[in-house]
Amino acid sequence: MNTYDSSYVRIPAGALKDTVTTCLKSHGISDSDAEVVADVLVAADLRGIESHGVARLSSYYLDGLKAGGINPRPHRQINSSARSIFVLDADNGLGHPACHQAMNRCIELAENDGIAVGGVKNSNHFGIAGYYAMQAAEQGMVGLCLTNSGPLVLPTYGRRATLGTNPIAVAVPAGDSPPFVLDMATSVVPIGKIEVHRRKEKPVPISWGADAEGLPCEDPDTIIEQGALFPLGGTDRTSGYKGYGLAAVVDILSGVLTGAGFLTAVGSADDPGTTGVGHFVAALRVDAMMPLDTFGSQMDEFIDQLQSAPLAADCEQIYVAGQKEHLQYEKNLREGVPLHPKVHRELVSICQSLDVPAPETCR
Amino acid sequence: MNTYDSSYVRIPAGALKDTVTTCLKSHGISDSDAEVVADVLVAADLRGIESHGVARLSSYYLDGLKAGGINPRPHRQINSSARSIFVLDADNGLGHPACHQAMNRCIELAENDGIAVGGVKNSNHFGIAGYYAMQAAEQGMVGLCLTNSGPLVLPTYGRRATLGTNPIAVAVPAGDSPPFVLDMATSVVPIGKIEVHRRKEKPVPISWGADAEGLPCEDPDTIIEQGALFPLGGTDRTSGYKGYGLAAVVDILSGVLTGAGFLTAVGSADDPGTTGVGHFVAALRVDAMMPLDTFGSQMDEFIDQLQSAPLAADCEQIYVAGQKEHLQYEKNLREGVPLHPKVHRELVSICQSLDVPAPETCR
Repeated sequence: MNTYDSSYVRIPAGALKDTVTTCLKSHGISDSDAEVVADVLVAADLRGIESHGVARLSSYYLDGLKAGGINPRPHRQINSSARSIFVLDADNGLGHPACHQAMNRCIELAENDGIAVGGVKNSNHFGIAGYYAMQAAEQGMVGLCLTNSGPLVLPTYGRRATLGTNPIAVAVPAGDSPPFVLDMATSVVPIGKIEVHRRKEKPVPISWGADAEGLPCEDPDTIIEQGALFPLGGTDRTSGYKGYGLAAVVDILSGVLTGAGFLTAVGSADDPGTTGVGHFVAALRVDAMMPLDTFGSQMDEFIDQLQSAPLAADCEQIYVAGQKEHLQYEKNLREGVPLHPKVHRELVSICQSLDVPAPETCR
Repeated sequence: MNTYDSSYVRIPAGALKDTVTTCLKSHGISDSDAEVVADVLVAADLRGIESHGVARLSSYYLDGLKAGGINPRPHRQINSSARSIFVLDADNGLGHPACHQAMNRCIELAENDGIAVGGVKNSNHFGIAGYYAMQAAEQGMVGLCLTNSGPLVLPTYGRRATLGTNPIAVAVPAGDSPPFVLDMATSVVPIGKIEVHRRKEKPVPISWGADAEGLPCEDPDTIIEQGALFPLGGTDRTSGYKGYGLAAVVDILSGVLTGAGFLTAVGSADDPGTTGVGHFVAALRVDAMMPLDTFGSQMDEFIDQLQSAPLAADCEQIYVAGQKEHLQYEKNLREGVPLHPKVHRELVSICQSLDVPAPETCR
């Protein structure tokens, strides 16, 4: 679990959501869309994924809305030429409500036919992919969510950032255990981890990033300014071409197949222009294959077997995907959403500029 | 591409398929099932994946058939409780015809509804996962094929082999380019690569495998006899928990969801007993989302952009998934299927014991 030092400011989840919703509405976002975005951002902070939470409110979303790069009042349309598949045109609105709507549509279709998939085009950054996969898990379905993103990752044997960190999220309901939730970038690490090492002036492990020549590099400045991230696996010697292949699959399904941008045509979330991001979602109804309660107890056994496997030297616990985030979620829901003091100051300043009351802190 | 030294024996693909088919039929396999198995095994050798080709005929299949661990005349049944999803019970037969049938069923269903998925339970080793994904690509669909397998891979922070190398295969049709075909184990390397280093008495790169304590290890003997493989990504420091998470997803979909075995309950392919393997397949009709010719030209552009990206120092070419295997396939189809002399001798010996004529070699 994350450690939050005493400088972090804790805010009740409900109050924080209300504030974020109000800030978005002041930028012309509809009530219902603003509520979805706020829920996704606060969910990230609750789950301990600070890099995708309220910290990004200005740089990824409000700045784009102010600059006109993101459409505040999109007219979203669903086109479908077959029964269990569709493409949602997000009309260059925020990614969160578009992907939330697409997953809800998938869930509806899968109720009837067992499985459905949807693409989203003309979209923008949508926060954590795991949020949308979990929508399905809450309905007794396996949920899948993919998205492409601005180029940061090199292809194996290449030296330029050509692919996004293109995450894969899969959520699976369990019985008594929390759901299995894998939510992973297809790079070794996100760019944020390199930035943390840069701030601390520390070298990064050797297979995280490359220099301008595409060679493994330990210097965070060089990686950020001239280099690129390695795909999961690192160099070819440790099978980095597998991570590169996965990143390509995510871009094909989210970008090429939906008619969105792909590869270097995808804009970066912190650039206030139009990004042309695409997403891909799927929902699979478990009880079309096996009774849900049987599946739940089998998943509990699956999780239990992994957690009770013999430990490696000096290790204390084997985790299952989503477990750390679930524990973090429960703790933060009780104690308040932890905001880094810098993030809190920025939120207060946004509120002041919009003449919106800042959220009360805990205690 | 692979290099085959002059000791390799080349056999015309058709003749090799006929021989393998005849050997399987002598073990009680039906004509149509034997033809599918032979096609899958020879396709692996044609594509340069020797570890999954004719080399495994005895150890993975004929030995199991002789020992009674594999059912030569399975009665396969498809059960479905929703329109676009089903489970095929392979009745403990060979995995190849079961998965081939499941993918064909998926393709049929996806013709109507755009997407379909199928699970396979009570199955056995099925060769290369990419073969089944490519069935869909040949029909203008995106194909997905997953399978679980006997335990070889440790979970992050664990020390015992608990998961299989659980491959992920995705095939996507293109326009003028060969199809995109990703077919990758979710471990850093397959066990075969450690075995090659053992035979050559060479240390392995540090993140491929672990010793009995779950710590990174360079000695192939230790890894094979007491240790385990690392999941894609290696140790936790280089995000091995992502490869572990992907291996778990494959086991959940192929094993838990289908009602097959999972984790350590899955038998190894070279153990002649029943393995309880499960597979998972999906087919997505491209033109339910975008006209197939538009998609094909966009895929060509996607592939071209990756291949023309700037090269890393001392690198000659950026490859796209499946491209090396496609070139190898075309070359081997012209020049004959290359069999390692040991594999060829074993095949001749199988033929002699069954009173079947050995295949003529090329030239």
